[in-house]
Parts: sequence; C-alpha cells; structure tokens
Amino acid sequence: MTSQALCEQYGIDFPLFAFSHCRDVVAAVTNAGGFGVLGATAYTPEQLDRELTWIDEAVGDKPYGVDLIVPAKFEGKGEKLSGTDLAGRIPQAYRDLVDDLLRSHDIEPEPERRLGGASLSGNTGRELLDVALTHPVKLIANALGVPPDYMIEAGKERGIPVAALVGAKEHAVKQVAAGVDLIVAQGTEAGGHCGEVSTLVVVPEVLDAVDGAVPVLAAGGIVTGRQMAGMVAIGAAGAWTGSVWLTTEEAETAPHTVAKMLAASSRDTVRSAGRTGKPSRQLVSEWTDAWLPHSGGHQPLPLPLQSMLCEPVIRRIDVLAAQGHDGAQALATYFVGQGVGLMNKVKPAREVVREFIEDYLAAADRLSNSLPG
Amino acid sequence: MTSQALCEQYGIDFPLFAFSHCRDVVAAVTNAGGFGVLGATAYTPEQLDRELTWIDEAVGDKPYGVDLIVPAKFEGKGEKLSGTDLAGRIPQAYRDLVDDLLRSHDIEPEPERRLGGASLSGNTGRELLDVALTHPVKLIANALGVPPDYMIEAGKERGIPVAALVGAKEHAVKQVAAGVDLIVAQGTEAGGHCGEVSTLVVVPEVLDAVDGAVPVLAAGGIVTGRQMAGMVAIGAAGAWTGSVWLTTEEAETAPHTVAKMLAASSRDTVRSAGRTGKPSRQLVSEWTDAWLPHSGGHQPLPLPLQSMLCEPVIRRIDVLAAQGHDGAQALATYFVGQGVGLMNKVKPAREVVREFIEDYLAAADRLSNSLPG
Repeated sequence: MTSQALCEQYGIDFPLFAFSHCRDVVAAVTNAGGFGVLGATAYTPEQLDRELTWIDEAVGDKPYGVDLIVPAKFEGKGEKLSGTDLAGRIPQAYRDLVDDLLRSHDIEPEPERRLGGASLSGNTGRELLDVALTHPVKLIANALGVPPDYMIEAGKERGIPVAALVGAKEHAVKQVAAGVDLIVAQGTEAGGHCGEVSTLVVVPEVLDAVDGAVPVLAAGGIVTGRQMAGMVAIGAAGAWTGSVWLTTEEAETAPHTVAKMLAASSRDTVRSAGRTGKPSRQLVSEWTDAWLPHSGGHQPLPLPLQSMLCEPVIRRIDVLAAQGHDGAQALATYFVGQGVGLMNKVKPAREVVREFIEDYLAAADRLSNSLPG
Repeated sequence: MTSQALCEQYGIDFPLFAFSHCRDVVAAVTNAGGFGVLGATAYTPEQLDRELTWIDEAVGDKPYGVDLIVPAKFEGKGEKLSGTDLAGRIPQAYRDLVDDLLRSHDIEPEPERRLGGASLSGNTGRELLDVALTHPVKLIANALGVPPDYMIEAGKERGIPVAALVGAKEHAVKQVAAGVDLIVAQGTEAGGHCGEVSTLVVVPEVLDAVDGAVPVLAAGGIVTGRQMAGMVAIGAAGAWTGSVWLTTEEAETAPHTVAKMLAASSRDTVRSAGRTGKPSRQLVSEWTDAWLPHSGGHQPLPLPLQSMLCEPVIRRIDVLAAQGHDGAQALATYFVGQGVGLMNKVKPAREVVREFIEDYLAAADRLSNSLPG
C-alpha cells in the first residue's frame, strides 16, 4: 500500500504514527495531522478510561489508537496462576542479586519486597481492550507476538484495524496469516522490546515477505523526517515512532531522564533483557551492566518474572535519581532507541511533527535531484 | 556534497561503491558505471601488483580504488616486534581452547601450529600502499581508525582521495580533522568490522557532525537500490557495499559458503570479536558461539593476536567444510552483513549494478509520489 492510500484509509495528512504513554503527545500528534497511539499497558482499566476520555475531548473526530502488549509467550501462560504464584517462581538468589546491586550503589533495599504486577502476563490485556472499545479508537496495536484471537476478532467485528510490531520477516508472515491489518517492521535500534535485525534490513525483508497483503510501517531509530522519507522510498507506507516523543514538552519524562537523553549519543543504549526478561533497548547504565549480554552479567529471568522483580526497584531508582542520588543516577535506565543520539532539544510535539514534514519534503527533493543523468 | 557532484568528482555514472577481494568484481562494477574497490589486505605486495595490473587492463581509464586496513590501535604497536615476538603473546590456554574446539568437531589439530601473519599490525600496509601508488588508483580507503600520516600525505601529494570507514560520529569528526576526503558511515548491520550503531542512525549522525566538510557514503546492510535511495534521501552522497558482491558469479566465494549465504536469513549473522579480536559481523556458527558476547563464550584476544591464532584454523575449516565435513560445516563462518537475508540468487556483478539502478529509480519515484497533498 502506498503512503497516500494509507493516509486516506486512516484519515490522516501525514503517515507518521507516534507511540507515547502520554495522552498530551497522542493528542498533539493527532491534531497536527499524524496518528497518535497511547501506550496503555501501564494503566488500570479505570485509568485508561480516564485517559481516553481526555483524548476524545482533545482530538474531536480525528483518529488515534491504543497499544496493548499481550505477549504470545510468557512464564505461566495457560496455567491458572495468581500474582503470588508467579512471585514464588522468582528465585531467592535473584532477589538477593538485586538487593546487592542496590547496596553497592548506597541504596538500602526495602525491608518488604514489593513486586510489580504481572501486567505483561496478558490477563489485564483483555480488560484494557474492553475499555478501549468503548472509545472511538481507530487502531489497536500489539507487540510481542501474534495478538490474541479476541483482539483480532474484536477488530474485525468493529472494523478497527489491528497492528502488530515485528522484528523479523518470519513473524510478519505469521501475523498476516493470523489476520493482522497493519505490520510495524521494527529494527534492532528501536527503544523498548526489539529484535536483532536493523531497520534498514528488516523493512525491505518484511515488505518482500508480506508482498502487499497489508501495509508496512517502518520503526526503529526514526526520529527525523529524512529517515522516514528514506523508509518510504524503500516501500514503507509510513513510520512508527516512539523515542522522539520522550523529549517533547508534553512528555511526562522526568527532567533528569530528559537531560540524560539530550546528552546521550547513539552508543549510549544497549539491548538488554535485564529489565523485562525479553531483549529491550534502553539507556546503558550500571543496571543494564549487571545482566547478560554484558560480559560477566547475570542471565535474566523469563517474562514477566524479571519485570515483576525489577520494575518497582527501577521506579524507586528513578525517584532517587531525580533527587540527585549518585548511586541511583548510575543505575537509572530508560527505554529509548539509538535515535536518542539525534534528539538534542526539547520541543513541543506539534513542532516535531512540523519538522518531520519539512525534513521529509527536503529529503524527497534531494533524492529526486540525485537521479542519474 | 550531492550524489551528482560526487559522481562528477569520481568520474562515475552511479554512486555505488563496491568493496571486494575479487578483481573481477571490482572491474565489473567499475565497467558498469559504479566504483570498484579492491580489498588488498590479504595480498603480498607482489600479488597486489599482479591484481592491479589485471584490473588496469580490464577497466581502461575508468576509476577504481584499493582498500587497506591499517588499524590505528593494535597489540604491539610502537614496539619493534617480530611475528615470533607477537606469537609469544598468545597464551597457551587459547591455543588449547582452539584445539579443543576443533577436536569436539572431529577435526584433529595440526601437530605444528601455524599462525597467521600479523598483516593487521600495519607493517605491510605501507608496502601495499607503495604498490598501489604505481597504479592509477582513484581512491585509497582505510578502516579501523584514522589512516596513518603516510597514507594521507601520499593521497594529498598525488591528488588521490583517501576514504575512511567509521561506525560512530565521533570517529568521523576525527577523520575529517586528520585530512580524510571521503567518509564511509557504516552501520552495525555491516559485514566485517563494524560498530554498534545502525546505518539508519549513524548516517544522519555523521552527516550532521561532518556538516558538509566532506561527502559521506552510507554503508551497512545495503544490498538493494531501494536501500541506497533511502540513504541518498537522508543525505548520503552514495552507498558503499560489500556483502552483496559475495554471491555474484565473479566472486571467488567457495560454493558451500555461497549456498550458506543464499539460505541465510538476516538473523543468521552475529557481531563477534572471535575472529580478529575486534567486533566483526559474520555468519553465526559454532565458532562464533565459542566467543563472547555469546553467553558462556570466551573473551577474544586483542588484534592482531586473535586473527593470528584463528585465521589459519578458519581457513582449514573452510577447506574441510567444502569437502562436506560435518564438524567443519558447523564451525565455518564468513564475514557478511545482515543484508545476507536479502541475497537470494547468484547473479553477474554487472546485473547487480543494473538492478541497483532500476530499484533506485523506482524508489525515487515512490518517494516523489508519496508527497503529502
């Protein structure tokens, strides 16, 4: 599908999809002619309802979507397990390891260990979807494997396209066979969960494999309009972005994290499973150094055990880092892609969209003027 | 610099640079309107002279270049060391480790260990350059750090541009300051030595950092004209390619290696220091599994000790693999980038150039037609 056809189908002016956990970013991008997608995983159903109600008012009848992460595979899938049952599968050695890491950074572990929710275990995915469907969402996105049947069926019934993020062409083929309507081909340079293949390679591979059955968006490392234009030249219908919105004025990123990102080069991220149990790209820190594949690091636990163990600790680290605690600042990490090296200024989200469009047009001119005699 | 200006300066029709160890590929690409570059590191001065004489006859006055690898840093640099002195720095434990790896794959280690030459130590670089300068080369390229002064001076004296491969913007800035005339910004998806940052990110980063001082070619994962067009849209003056020529009719790649590459997906490569001591991308195999960052792998020796230890063994493995030896086939590896996933057919090199041009033109049309109303 061409990018023009995609814009027509999705009711947008410019095929720039913006993933953000922040409703203000979602609304700003949608209102600027792009397509905002709210990352909904961290919300309770009640919170999600509130956020979407706010967005509905902010965007009128302009389109936006929600992104749920319902992984296809996870520890305890198919078993009737409570959070407590799952927690029992976190070995004491790992609890000790995290405590030691904290102590070595002058942070006293909490006497009663708090564990994160098993939200990635998919039980809450359905509830969040039900809430989203009471709002006029125009896209349901999913990562970490083929979406569950109930998600694909709900989309088909209501005429809402379902999108899936993939990091390899084999996964794209499976997703299309399962009924997905839009493929986001995401390279290893992406922030958050990602595969091993670069955007420049995985996008043409997925395009070839999908062979026009559904449109393909390019993702991973894209923080400028020129990169997006390059991907459209290759055949993508548009771009899916995430990191670039983290340093916008609207984003709720903590100031010390924004400062870290503005200063970071593209070599300051690492693909590590030390946060969720699946490889995800984030700022390199003494936390990521503690886990494989860092030399001498530990083998992370499987999803969702690693995030149950680590997320509450990482959130505590963030709070301490914001207060200027040295050890916490050395440990603090944040999901972001290699494009962070090109993110050097805080801007309003609307301004980012405007710059994307200008930069895209200049890139199209450049390529057009390059044509061999 | 625009790609048109680059073509004019280098006397070519299409800004496609082809790195190959095979003179036939170099000549075929140059004769098809691109720019062939002979990888010269593996040759003795006499051999290189023969190869370049052959190319001179094959291309007439069309332009071609040579690529030397003179690393800026290596074990023993600045010391007066013979090959035997360097060999003495290879610990017995590493010799044993390689022997054990061979035995576990039903290959008897050779009773007298042969070590590879320390060609990467830079002593032969100057001799090879002197030979190259007796031929009408139109580009001298170097990888692994800032080229030695004698290389930059020789280029300036004779009006021959000197190119440098870089994997990070900081390196590009250093190279330009040192007097390099052409920067090849190479992503982590590239075959052979490579950095950590993807092509899609490192190319715009390097373009911004270099700020027009010298032209920038994009490299890493580029095996099609559409990818090249994407990079020109971003601002690269052209593309530097390597892997795609390995499965051409002219290449001297062994048939079992060609078969492995045609069958490989983009996920069948790994960035490993287990061959030369510096991270390089190659086909994943039980050889690469034996070294870090593979979980449980060993820490490789520094450059050039690792390649002195390993290259003769890997060459022996290649010979056995070609004979159908199972253990050798499991161990065999080869430098190639993630673009291998898009290399699915053996073709003449001239045909590859023709397809690049067609695919490039189609991509430019696609981007041009995508422009928002």
